[in-house]
Amino acid sequence: MLWHEQAWPQIASCDQNIPIIIPLGSCEQHGHHLPVFVDTIQVQAVADGVERALHDRILMLPAIWLGSSHHHADYPGTISLPPELYTAVIKEIVRSVLRGGFRRLFFLNGHGGNEIPVAQALAAMVAESDQADSAYLAYASWWSVGKDALDPQKLSLSTPGISHACEVETSMMLAIRPDLVKQELAIEPSPVLRSEWFNFEYGGKVAVFRRYHRLTPSGDMGAPKAGTKEKGETMLAGVIADVVRFLEEFARWPELPRIGPS
Amino acid sequence: MLWHEQAWPQIASCDQNIPIIIPLGSCEQHGHHLPVFVDTIQVQAVADGVERALHDRILMLPAIWLGSSHHHADYPGTISLPPELYTAVIKEIVRSVLRGGFRRLFFLNGHGGNEIPVAQALAAMVAESDQADSAYLAYASWWSVGKDALDPQKLSLSTPGISHACEVETSMMLAIRPDLVKQELAIEPSPVLRSEWFNFEYGGKVAVFRRYHRLTPSGDMGAPKAGTKEKGETMLAGVIADVVRFLEEFARWPELPRIGPS
Amino acid sequence: MLWHEQAWPQIASCDQNIPIIIPLGSCEQHGHHLPVFVDTIQVQAVADGVERALHDRILMLPAIWLGSSHHHADYPGTISLPPELYTAVIKEIVRSVLRGGFRRLFFLNGHGGNEIPVAQALAAMVAESDQADSAYLAYASWWSVGKDALDPQKLSLSTPGISHACEVETSMMLAIRPDLVKQELAIEPSPVLRSEWFNFEYGGKVAVFRRYHRLTPSGDMGAPKAGTKEKGETMLAGVIADVVRFLEEFARWPELPRIGPS
Amino acid sequence: MLWHEQAWPQIASCDQNIPIIIPLGSCEQHGHHLPVFVDTIQVQAVADGVERALHDRILMLPAIWLGSSHHHADYPGTISLPPELYTAVIKEIVRSVLRGGFRRLFFLNGHGGNEIPVAQALAAMVAESDQADSAYLAYASWWSVGKDALDPQKLSLSTPGISHACEVETSMMLAIRPDLVKQELAIEPSPVLRSEWFNFEYGGKVAVFRRYHRLTPSGDMGAPKAGTKEKGETMLAGVIADVVRFLEEFARWPELPRIGPS
Amino acid sequence: MLWHEQAWPQIASCDQNIPIIIPLGSCEQHGHHLPVFVDTIQVQAVADGVERALHDRILMLPAIWLGSSHHHADYPGTISLPPELYTAVIKEIVRSVLRGGFRRLFFLNGHGGNEIPVAQALAAMVAESDQADSAYLAYASWWSVGKDALDPQKLSLSTPGISHACEVETSMMLAIRPDLVKQELAIEPSPVLRSEWFNFEYGGKVAVFRRYHRLTPSGDMGAPKAGTKEKGETMLAGVIADVVRFLEEFARWPELPRIGPS
Amino acid sequence: MLWHEQAWPQIASCDQNIPIIIPLGSCEQHGHHLPVFVDTIQVQAVADGVERALHDRILMLPAIWLGSSHHHADYPGTISLPPELYTAVIKEIVRSVLRGGFRRLFFLNGHGGNEIPVAQALAAMVAESDQADSAYLAYASWWSVGKDALDPQKLSLSTPGISHACEVETSMMLAIRPDLVKQELAIEPSPVLRSEWFNFEYGGKVAVFRRYHRLTPSGDMGAPKAGTKEKGETMLAGVIADVVRFLEEFARWPELPRIGPS
Repeated sequence: MLWHEQAWPQIASCDQNIPIIIPLGSCEQHGHHLPVFVDTIQVQAVADGVERALHDRILMLPAIWLGSSHHHADYPGTISLPPELYTAVIKEIVRSVLRGGFRRLFFLNGHGGNEIPVAQALAAMVAESDQADSAYLAYASWWSVGKDALDPQKLSLSTPGISHACEVETSMMLAIRPDLVKQELAIEPSPVLRSEWFNFEYGGKVAVFRRYHRLTPSGDMGAPKAGTKEKGETMLAGVIADVVRFLEEFARWPELPRIGPS
Repeated sequence: MLWHEQAWPQIASCDQNIPIIIPLGSCEQHGHHLPVFVDTIQVQAVADGVERALHDRILMLPAIWLGSSHHHADYPGTISLPPELYTAVIKEIVRSVLRGGFRRLFFLNGHGGNEIPVAQALAAMVAESDQADSAYLAYASWWSVGKDALDPQKLSLSTPGISHACEVETSMMLAIRPDLVKQELAIEPSPVLRSEWFNFEYGGKVAVFRRYHRLTPSGDMGAPKAGTKEKGETMLAGVIADVVRFLEEFARWPELPRIGPS
Repeated sequence: MLWHEQAWPQIASCDQNIPIIIPLGSCEQHGHHLPVFVDTIQVQAVADGVERALHDRILMLPAIWLGSSHHHADYPGTISLPPELYTAVIKEIVRSVLRGGFRRLFFLNGHGGNEIPVAQALAAMVAESDQADSAYLAYASWWSVGKDALDPQKLSLSTPGISHACEVETSMMLAIRPDLVKQELAIEPSPVLRSEWFNFEYGGKVAVFRRYHRLTPSGDMGAPKAGTKEKGETMLAGVIADVVRFLEEFARWPELPRIGPS
Repeated sequence: MLWHEQAWPQIASCDQNIPIIIPLGSCEQHGHHLPVFVDTIQVQAVADGVERALHDRILMLPAIWLGSSHHHADYPGTISLPPELYTAVIKEIVRSVLRGGFRRLFFLNGHGGNEIPVAQALAAMVAESDQADSAYLAYASWWSVGKDALDPQKLSLSTPGISHACEVETSMMLAIRPDLVKQELAIEPSPVLRSEWFNFEYGGKVAVFRRYHRLTPSGDMGAPKAGTKEKGETMLAGVIADVVRFLEEFARWPELPRIGPS
Repeated sequence: MLWHEQAWPQIASCDQNIPIIIPLGSCEQHGHHLPVFVDTIQVQAVADGVERALHDRILMLPAIWLGSSHHHADYPGTISLPPELYTAVIKEIVRSVLRGGFRRLFFLNGHGGNEIPVAQALAAMVAESDQADSAYLAYASWWSVGKDALDPQKLSLSTPGISHACEVETSMMLAIRPDLVKQELAIEPSPVLRSEWFNFEYGGKVAVFRRYHRLTPSGDMGAPKAGTKEKGETMLAGVIADVVRFLEEFARWPELPRIGPS
Repeated sequence: MLWHEQAWPQIASCDQNIPIIIPLGSCEQHGHHLPVFVDTIQVQAVADGVERALHDRILMLPAIWLGSSHHHADYPGTISLPPELYTAVIKEIVRSVLRGGFRRLFFLNGHGGNEIPVAQALAAMVAESDQADSAYLAYASWWSVGKDALDPQKLSLSTPGISHACEVETSMMLAIRPDLVKQELAIEPSPVLRSEWFNFEYGGKVAVFRRYHRLTPSGDMGAPKAGTKEKGETMLAGVIADVVRFLEEFARWPELPRIGPS
């Protein structure tokens, strides 16, 4: 059920244990071949599918397209909040939803750069608010909750997973908004660092931080030319199914009372 | 032209003097008869009309639906940033757009509660940044830039102007999304204060601040039952025309060099 | 009654419904012909008149001369807080007064640049504090509450209203501190922008933000040479009368209990 | 010379090595017998004397009456900024004065509670700004710079120095504004802690922090009934002479270039 | 080489490409059987081993024992910074080290709760500082960089990895400071939630946030009674070897010049 | 008793009136002849002596080595928090200790630059928290609490007291860690300002703020070559004895109930 299309008394009369879904996008460069709204378009597509499946068993807000993308800020077109401010925004959304009496919040994330500041926000909320600590505050990026659906072998991907403006994202966009994809303009630059400990596309045992203008001249990574509409449709359907399955369980997780010292 | 549907090289190649439009909405209670997204729906409808008219003479972002509505926070369904945080968010949007080299920003606002924190943001940006001071930072609510189009006499309104979930907003929504209007549920409570100096619906010579739960039990104000689809269609077309006329002039305003001490 | 000349037990024994008046000034450039303390001198003169008229029916603080004038910061002599910090200061004054048990606060403002951050402060206080929300927090600039007294036709002004170091301010200063006025040094530069939508002297349907060093080389605006002592005396008396009339009503406004959801 | 009575070009034409004096007061409870503005009245009286003596060899602002007095906040009548906010305000005053090109700032303090946040402000300014580090940022409370003038033996005081609403302050007020002193209402409560390491009236080797409502029921300390007009006049004249002497030297202190690593 | 035992000219003369190691600990409850300093003791032991191995090929600071542990704050003994403040502290350490000219920073982390705020700090530094963006800012928890050394099968662990006051930590402490371990007091409470998507001991595809007083009455988790000194000694040696191997490579990673826009 | 070596139930069972000691150090340049950790090494040595003497009559944390030393930031090797951030850190430590139920906190300080921000922190805590106001929050630098033990005449010092990397500190280090002292490298530069009102080594009636790179090229001050191990041993023993004596009294100071208005 769409939160934003309800009048307030309808929201006030909902079961307070219903999962509340807040999709998170971004507006940031995605190479020469994809629009800056890729993350928002993708997460909204996943959210739409989930809403169609669960309808009145959840309340869902529209995607917040303003994300934390300062690592892409050197490329025109990126509109971004720095991490600390994005954290503050997420905290206020949590406060707003809790104020309405709801107790199960799920941020469905569509942009890697949002992960740390969202985690920071939820950790901070739990730390400073007994009401938040008594509720379920959860988040996952769609490629994490849908990890099995994105198994590179099952999908015959040529790359090990999602990076940026890559095979996965190009495929997803070909499935959702093919009119916005100019696959022939993709560049596929070489990685700037190869190491067993970390790489800028897929991470590693150590975490390293740089803005993208030191990693890729064009803004894309990986193998976007290997993306296909078919891969994208399979991914999208699989991820939606996984999120639905998670939310069905999430709605039933037990209350967690205080059992330690307070 | 829609900013978010472009790849970054397309945005990078735009004329840096093109007006950049950022519509601002909210998610807040609008009485028993209107959905919480009224302000976002309305400003997006104005923005859509403007974009159709001016197309590639502007770059337009989608509405930011997260507004500053803490005066409505006591009603479930309201999702809001407090004024200081909303100010910080607007400042970052300005920084992001300036970083891309653009120099004419117009925030097209759709929610009264956003006005003060947006003004605070633009005043602060100009104060702290020479780059911002050298650019045009402007904002207007659609009912302000379109003031003439909303002339209560021309429109035969039964109330003197826009307040909240009122005749104007109900009319607009009947024109844009009639499926979301349950006009028969509107309450039309009496004002809690009558004074020549100030009233909570239409302001006055003095400014006074309260949360809405002390002003209206239902959340609406004014005369929503007097709203009609016809009034709404006239308003919407008139406001769009006014914003278009303003932007055509805005695009041609002269550079303002430093002429005083620096 | 002057707050600052009382010992604390006298303040503690006052009726908690008495209006508390906090005049707000600035220290900022006012052209070549007026001192940097114009706004403080003017608002203090209005406040003094009000205090003489209402005496023990109000409690009045002295003007806070430190205002928010960063748009004048390029001219030496300006001492200013940026908008966000001024907002924080106003919030603390509200907290201090509320802590003493008082419930009707009126900020009598004397500087245009203070308006937005004061509004931001009062909006934020109401948002975050139930005690503030249960009280009356109000502000007005003296030219707003005294709008009728400043009617340009009645006063035979050559300009439509107050701008900066202008006909109105020069007249007021000639009435209050003529020794500080060097009217022959006024410059009266031409406006840098003419538009039906906005001008930097008198505002408009759209709001636009710049520092003054792009608007006037000398710092003054409008027609300061048209100012006279007689106009100033009429204005001052009229504004004082209006503020007095407002405060007499303000003291009697009803309590506003919660009537909506909380 | 009074900064606030000059037009900006006059300030712009001053020697940038002239000392700039910013007096700092407070608005806080001072027992049953003294008004809440004691600190502001006293520091302004010292400042007035200094300005008369040095005239155009200094530029002086009027006292900022809003101080940091949260330790007195439990007594109605106290208007206060918390320490961190007061620090931020002082930093902005420094920035404003430096922006005008001046390089020798002296905060003449009149309230003990301001000392720490002023020191914090000046330390922080020097840390974060090379311009501040290249200038002289100084402060002293009048009882510190005038320590010799307040020698308890020379003045035949019955107490060892200044505490709060005490013999020293009562004497000063009897000299400056006797109409505001109701000496017969002074209470002189007993100290709540006696220790060789610390006492709440006169400090010690260790620093201990409490709000005053745990230290004195009436708000005064020490021996206010021992105050006399004669002591006050002697103190006032002596302190003014000391501040004048300091400022004459301060104006001549050498530039301090960088000599270490930068 | 120990940073803190050098005089500043020695540090100034080091190769600026040398890795700088900053170990991060915590002071937080670790059940009934382990002291609150477990995380600091462990990370210092790893750091000591690394310093012995690499000596003058690195510069190493002592562990910062103050971590971000508000999820443990309900248990007495926990001393903690909230996440946002810890982030601000880490940013300042980065600024301090960069100010000295160094360009390869590695935070060797010993507490899970520090991971998010450290990541937030490094992401923010890179976003706001070109100098930071041009340097290597990296972090890893010792159980991440030493993931292979902690392989549960190789070590014959009864649990799948590190959680809190668990088999791994008890083993490590038995190897490092057996005098501080009272293994017989360990409780081993049952998990409060079992799910394929997430569990509070080992994480999962979704992230969920709670304070520990809702997860474990005693503060420990997993199987601390299964810990042995032998396991601990193997782990410690293995982790040290892995960190050494990583740092040897880290010291040789290439400079990353700007290759994208601006 | 060492806080950090206890498990949480042991800390929870301590008498809540026991003094809690938090030693504060720094990591900052100390000339050519002393390591950057001087302040931390010294305060830890004092703390160790105190802990040996009082053992289970106090709870003591290890020194926090990260201090506020931005005035030394121009010398490589300095790791520092700016004053406002250090204040925020100290406030959180207070909150953590109060949360555990303890009511007597003593910050034993070892670095002059920490004094102002610690005072700011404790003043702010008392202002904003009734719990903090009801507790004892105290701090002293070891040279203040041990002022008598450092009497320059008794010790036959050639300088009047502690400044920086000076006779006192060199003596202390010769007593504690002689292996880290290279006394022959000390420089002893001349003071840059001589005044009866203030000097940068020993302070004065007025407070003046500069970074050290304008005061000393080498980083040391005073007469470090006059330091001896014997002086250091006498100082260290005397200071420890004084802190012990203070803490024995501190543990017995009376509760201070509210006696004024609240």
